[in-house]
Amino acid sequence: MGEFALIEWIRKHQKRRRDVVLGIGDDCAVINVSSDKLCLITTDMLVDGTHFDLKKCAIRDVGRKAIACSISDIAAMGCQPTVAVISICFPEHTTKKFVRELYAGIWHISDKYAIEIVGGDIISGRGPFCINVTMLGKDNELKPILRSGARVGDKILVTGKLGGSILGKHLSFEPRLKEALVLNKNFTIHAMIDISDGLSADLNHILEESGVGAVLDEDQIPISPAAVKLSKKTGYTPLYHALSDGEDYELLMTLSKVQAKRILSSDLLNDVKVSCIGEIVKSNGIWMKSSGGNIRPIKPHGYEHL
Amino acid sequence: MGEFALIEWIRKHQKRRRDVVLGIGDDCAVINVSSDKLCLITTDMLVDGTHFDLKKCAIRDVGRKAIACSISDIAAMGCQPTVAVISICFPEHTTKKFVRELYAGIWHISDKYAIEIVGGDIISGRGPFCINVTMLGKDNELKPILRSGARVGDKILVTGKLGGSILGKHLSFEPRLKEALVLNKNFTIHAMIDISDGLSADLNHILEESGVGAVLDEDQIPISPAAVKLSKKTGYTPLYHALSDGEDYELLMTLSKVQAKRILSSDLLNDVKVSCIGEIVKSNGIWMKSSGGNIRPIKPHGYEHL
Repeated sequence: MGEFALIEWIRKHQKRRRDVVLGIGDDCAVINVSSDKLCLITTDMLVDGTHFDLKKCAIRDVGRKAIACSISDIAAMGCQPTVAVISICFPEHTTKKFVRELYAGIWHISDKYAIEIVGGDIISGRGPFCINVTMLGKDNELKPILRSGARVGDKILVTGKLGGSILGKHLSFEPRLKEALVLNKNFTIHAMIDISDGLSADLNHILEESGVGAVLDEDQIPISPAAVKLSKKTGYTPLYHALSDGEDYELLMTLSKVQAKRILSSDLLNDVKVSCIGEIVKSNGIWMKSSGGNIRPIKPHGYEHL
Repeated sequence: MGEFALIEWIRKHQKRRRDVVLGIGDDCAVINVSSDKLCLITTDMLVDGTHFDLKKCAIRDVGRKAIACSISDIAAMGCQPTVAVISICFPEHTTKKFVRELYAGIWHISDKYAIEIVGGDIISGRGPFCINVTMLGKDNELKPILRSGARVGDKILVTGKLGGSILGKHLSFEPRLKEALVLNKNFTIHAMIDISDGLSADLNHILEESGVGAVLDEDQIPISPAAVKLSKKTGYTPLYHALSDGEDYELLMTLSKVQAKRILSSDLLNDVKVSCIGEIVKSNGIWMKSSGGNIRPIKPHGYEHL
């Protein structure tokens, strides 16, 4: 069926409430909780063997990651996370040390961002270790930035360098919350998403929600050293990894040429690299412009469950 | 370690935010989202092989149950559920029919109670089918009813009949939302909880949170026909099942003698049976009074993970 097709199917069949400003289909849902306050909600499930491998990584890092993914989703709306609830399915014979290490990772990052764990559910099962985090956020008197706002002529900007996150960044990444709040407060961002499925797949989410297309500059895609390293093992090009690998958790955004220029020359984002990688166009799909000037269509490619 | 000990450990170590009115330790957490609005949040994870057995039950009923459990948690605070997010881990080779049936169960009950599914996460894994529901609720200008409000001299009331839910009610139960809202609107309830772990275990949650004890009248415990039926198989008494079996999802509450009388003679709850099963006392623990007048201590006994 495909993960994205399934989400579309669910979305189409879902009845709507009047106090839901934004339902299925963005990084978070947005609920109107009073006349002037919005509440954001996002949920992420991670399971051993799919999102990490406990034989190869520390449970402390997994706890940290579970929280960091949700922070990244709220950051992708340019908003402030507040509280979270955590459900955990422990395999049988889980030790106290394992639980303590898990929570050390959870608290290390939730304390850093002043997020309170307000509840949860703890169960045991015969399956692998599984953790689900649901996080709430608030608008902080800023407008949540949706996926659906990209306009023809917008520049496409991305933070950091991309690809090869499987070599480490998928566990150790710092969610771009500080940067997202600075961006939402000081600039007019039309559309934003965090890169979890992969650059081309997540850009495609923006394009589909906004009903537009994009031309990317091949030379401008910021390729990480990890992508180069991984490409030597896989035989794919570093560019392929930068376009297709998931879990970089960088911010991908579109905004007017003027605003893009302001960001690129601003020192508000300190030492975080921001790259202008292309432009929003009318023709649907993603197009890649090579240094020679040739343009070819590329297929969005990234991690999809199911 | 034990599920409840683990929850206590987490609770003690959790830092607090100013806008969190109620954190870990009740049916829902309560967050102050604006000057006059409260937001409730609860989360429940269900996994195949622990909470249900897909070899013996329909996935449609499992979808329904996942939503019904969360509705019951918000009902246990006397409040109104609004929206939910759902995370699902599908085993490999899940069919479209399975997904459609699951969502038929989810939507049947969420539509009935006007709850919108506003988001979620869909993943695949090598483990059993696992579903997590996080639900939000609103106070509806009513005060959320906590576990911690029981007072010495309070009567203990319970809805419905208890025990043997494993024979069917654990999947088919109707969450007591309508009744909970009527109770919160029309009466002064000191403490309330839904019976998910078992009567004695859930009563114990109220007692521990309130720092009191309880005397139960053996003759007044409402025993379900399912408890009688199950006792013939297990060799335990029907009373044992009514006290210990989980997942009846009835409401257990404490309130003043005067308010209890008002409820017992009221027709606001229509045809839902309400029983007065005992009284809150100063001495910690749960005490059972037999018809002969003998009093013996009983240990809270119910389902505990880990």
